[in-house]
Amino acid sequence: MNTNLQDYSHKRFNILTGEWVLVSPHRAKRPWQGQNEAVSKEVRPTHDSSCYLCARNTRINGEVNPDYKDVFVFTNDFAALQKDSPNFNVNEGLFKAESETGICKVICFSPDHSKSLADMAVNEITKVVAVWQKEYTLLDDNEAVNNVQIFENKGAVMGCSNPHPHGQIWSQSTLPNEIVKKDNQQKEYFSKNKTSLLGDYLAQELEAKERVIFENDHFVALTPFWAVWPFEVMIAPKKNYKDITQLSDIESVAYAEAISVITKAYDALFECSFPYSSGIHQAPTNGKENNHWHFHMSFYPPLLRSATVKKFMVGYEMFGTPQRDITAEQAAKRLRDLI
Amino acid sequence: MNTNLQDYSHKRFNILTGEWVLVSPHRAKRPWQGQNEAVSKEVRPTHDSSCYLCARNTRINGEVNPDYKDVFVFTNDFAALQKDSPNFNVNEGLFKAESETGICKVICFSPDHSKSLADMAVNEITKVVAVWQKEYTLLDDNEAVNNVQIFENKGAVMGCSNPHPHGQIWSQSTLPNEIVKKDNQQKEYFSKNKTSLLGDYLAQELEAKERVIFENDHFVALTPFWAVWPFEVMIAPKKNYKDITQLSDIESVAYAEAISVITKAYDALFECSFPYSSGIHQAPTNGKENNHWHFHMSFYPPLLRSATVKKFMVGYEMFGTPQRDITAEQAAKRLRDLI
Ligand SMILES: O=P(O)(O)O[C@H]1O[C@H](CO)[C@@H](O)[C@H](O)[C@H]1O
Ligand SMILES: O=P(O)(O)O[C@H]1O[C@H](CO)[C@@H](O)[C@H](O)[C@H]1O
Repeated sequence: MNTNLQDYSHKRFNILTGEWVLVSPHRAKRPWQGQNEAVSKEVRPTHDSSCYLCARNTRINGEVNPDYKDVFVFTNDFAALQKDSPNFNVNEGLFKAESETGICKVICFSPDHSKSLADMAVNEITKVVAVWQKEYTLLDDNEAVNNVQIFENKGAVMGCSNPHPHGQIWSQSTLPNEIVKKDNQQKEYFSKNKTSLLGDYLAQELEAKERVIFENDHFVALTPFWAVWPFEVMIAPKKNYKDITQLSDIESVAYAEAISVITKAYDALFECSFPYSSGIHQAPTNGKENNHWHFHMSFYPPLLRSATVKKFMVGYEMFGTPQRDITAEQAAKRLRDLI
Repeated sequence: MNTNLQDYSHKRFNILTGEWVLVSPHRAKRPWQGQNEAVSKEVRPTHDSSCYLCARNTRINGEVNPDYKDVFVFTNDFAALQKDSPNFNVNEGLFKAESETGICKVICFSPDHSKSLADMAVNEITKVVAVWQKEYTLLDDNEAVNNVQIFENKGAVMGCSNPHPHGQIWSQSTLPNEIVKKDNQQKEYFSKNKTSLLGDYLAQELEAKERVIFENDHFVALTPFWAVWPFEVMIAPKKNYKDITQLSDIESVAYAEAISVITKAYDALFECSFPYSSGIHQAPTNGKENNHWHFHMSFYPPLLRSATVKKFMVGYEMFGTPQRDITAEQAAKRLRDLI
């Protein structure tokens, strides 16, 4: 690896989005005088009677949660996307808008209010994976749904309004910005090379080793060459699967294992329940072949130096390009050392 | 205006970036149980001996700030971009990187530690505008600089590490992601229509009125049709100027007035010193004509409902598309009512 990448400001190219990230390895030394995040030291009960996600409790709309034992899915009571709104579009000169319909769901990962994925056993996480697969299939069968975005916001600093372990699925009629970018980049590569862009990249990473954090027979977890967030991680299958439903039972367990290893390493890094947003990018459910897609799950955690100091993606990042201080190689090494 | 835009989930197109924003007008009602931001009630002194931006104080690198009376510029002691780093590039299969050089500066808007732009008089803000113009010209003359990004991070919640009123300029050798998008969109429109994309848009907004917050003879301030942040505002000149150096003295004062009016309305909205990141997008200094560029300043403020409840751009927004709850029209009306 070119040692300049550890010493001097440079930019790296994200092959999946076609965009750049600015890297400033020399800058990790600047003193921090800004905002510190609160660390939640609270020990949570296994059941909280005021939590609208705990089993048997009543939600704001009057519905009572079942006495669920592992994973529980329901339609979001305050969904950002509506299912049955009218079809319309605005095309008045430079004002352009289109109606967008969709279905938003909430997935409770466990009835245990006190846990997070990092605290759950691999077989418990495997049940979450199974529900993601089932929901993807269900939504894929829905004519009105062309994209399924599975994600999790973890931690108050990531806008998570309830600490009960849960994720979300927002499915919708058109393709979100990020999916459009990744669709284009993967399609272009696939039609040129007849191989998966991400598959070829993973092979190169497994060879280079320095950004790989963990691997098992079926999955690789690494800090991508073009990572934006300080301790960003991508988990991807070695085989060119376009979506999570293609995984065999054994492969699903291997996927759950990778999630377990990474979330545990995260919690160990700064000795706190590590906040992040994670999401699975996979083939849109738009009825096309989509063989150029290679699914992957990414974790975007905001913490930079400690449980209380995060990286702010603000001014320059909003108006210019995302910027990072520590390099992907340094981040991967620190996480790898915790496994 | 199509009333569906106030009632149903839809997406709107950003003509400047070519990307979409998801709007969920029905969703503003959801209860908030998440993180509350701290409101700084602290009254700051006009001079703080521990502040590295106050006049006469010594910075971390040993330099002593001059006894400045209005605006003071210096090169960032912890610059993300280095001026004299070696030229290199990495092109190993799917690993692509390039060296990036640049100059990062800090601009103190006032020697008065207790103020923000909202507290400053129009003639004081005009001096800040004059320094932005001078710095843009200086950097434009620098062969190695092809883009000049002027911005401000205001408030701890926006990663601002020092409350002393100040902004930054990051200038660099290549064009940041956001500039590339806006360059493409404006160029395409200009070559097709021979008019400014943003100029034509502003004319349409001045006709529609509902998103306009303020105007004077030379500038318009509005919430763009495609605004992402709850109370996002754009300030733009009515004439098709590609950069801030084209403003006459009178126009520069009109610009300062617009900044003053908007920042004061912001502070009034939730009765707090309103946090935001602002930035000026203007023609890159890459030696090209760039007549398709129409400069504009944008404010991206995170607060949504009160001084303590912000909008989180997390899971879905990071993996899919930015999402907003209140509409641009509602936001513009609330700000307009405060002027
Ligand atoms: O240099 P500052 O103001 O301390 O740093 C702030 O602004 C920079 C530019 O937007 C960001 O990269 C940092 O994350 C943020 O904390
Ligand atoms: O629905 P939640 O989890 O309360 O809301 C959270 O996630 C959403 C999807 O990423 C965001 O739009 C919200 O800003 C955030 O607070």
